[in-house]
Amino acid sequence: MAEREPQVKIADMFTDRWSPRAFSSKPVKESDLQCLFEAARWAPSCYNEQPWQFYYVTADSPRHAKFVETLVDLNQSWACNAPALIYIVGQNNFKYNSKANPWSGFDTGAAWMSLALQARQMDLYTHAMAGFKQNAAMKFLGLDKKTHTVYAAIAAGYLGDKSMLNTDLQEKEEPSDRISTAEFVYKIV
Amino acid sequence: MAEREPQVKIADMFTDRWSPRAFSSKPVKESDLQCLFEAARWAPSCYNEQPWQFYYVTADSPRHAKFVETLVDLNQSWACNAPALIYIVGQNNFKYNSKANPWSGFDTGAAWMSLALQARQMDLYTHAMAGFKQNAAMKFLGLDKKTHTVYAAIAAGYLGDKSMLNTDLQEKEEPSDRISTAEFVYKIV
Repeated sequence: MAEREPQVKIADMFTDRWSPRAFSSKPVKESDLQCLFEAARWAPSCYNEQPWQFYYVTADSPRHAKFVETLVDLNQSWACNAPALIYIVGQNNFKYNSKANPWSGFDTGAAWMSLALQARQMDLYTHAMAGFKQNAAMKFLGLDKKTHTVYAAIAAGYLGDKSMLNTDLQEKEEPSDRISTAEFVYKIV
Repeated sequence: MAEREPQVKIADMFTDRWSPRAFSSKPVKESDLQCLFEAARWAPSCYNEQPWQFYYVTADSPRHAKFVETLVDLNQSWACNAPALIYIVGQNNFKYNSKANPWSGFDTGAAWMSLALQARQMDLYTHAMAGFKQNAAMKFLGLDKKTHTVYAAIAAGYLGDKSMLNTDLQEKEEPSDRISTAEFVYKIV
């Protein structure tokens, strides 16, 4: 497995988090799932609006298969094995005045990052997918795109053996690298 | 100071992070600022696109005052004391095909959360502000709204004494609470 080398020393949790596709069928305890949402809960948001919502299903639910069907085919092939699947949704409008909240996506992304980092504290992994069918997901969740935006589907669970993946995905089953900070950090002098 | 009580046990870092307005004038070492950006670097993003950018100024820069002027008045009054000010920006289009990236804000929010959590590992605090002048910020950064979105201005530094704030802000100088997970987490059964 590729080693991630940070350019400067940071907490290990950031490089220890990556997005596998091979998930073990071992169930995640309901109380552990609640810890993921609890971490997300404390994320900061514009006006402390907390625009995020989480909709989740576990593998033992009769609606698990329906959730899987809302993903694109490639993601269905592996995410179907994850013991928990979550949709992370942002509310488009501020609750206090019903006007558009331009920070809903940004703040919901912050909540997602907290969830992903808390997962690693419990030996859990997460994989966020943009590859889902927007209309199918909205319909599955019973939401209206005027008021809600589905940002990502998240697979969560314990790490599985990559032999469960097809050959193409097996080759990709390792932590991804990043561009250098020199490419995205600018000091104003 | 208000105590934050999580509903279920999570890593302390999530409740230890909050957004003060009283920042000490103690400078933040350049190498420590780089750790903040490094943590952001490892955030996940759609297609590993890494759409985020960070533009920062330190208190000793001749352009620090110009940065402060791009904030709304209320934020100017306290953020001017923060030893580092950062604009976090998202690139609107995918680099690989120049098409609109609907996840740019969400992914940039994830990078911001990583930065904020790494800060607390080094006894630093951050405060993200939506209260900045969008056009003035774009002009200050030399960016075009067709290609970039400024999501937040971030004050970063060590905690200061709240007596430095005006009376109204002194009263607000404590960690904010959150709504219950019951209000934003839905189990699909």
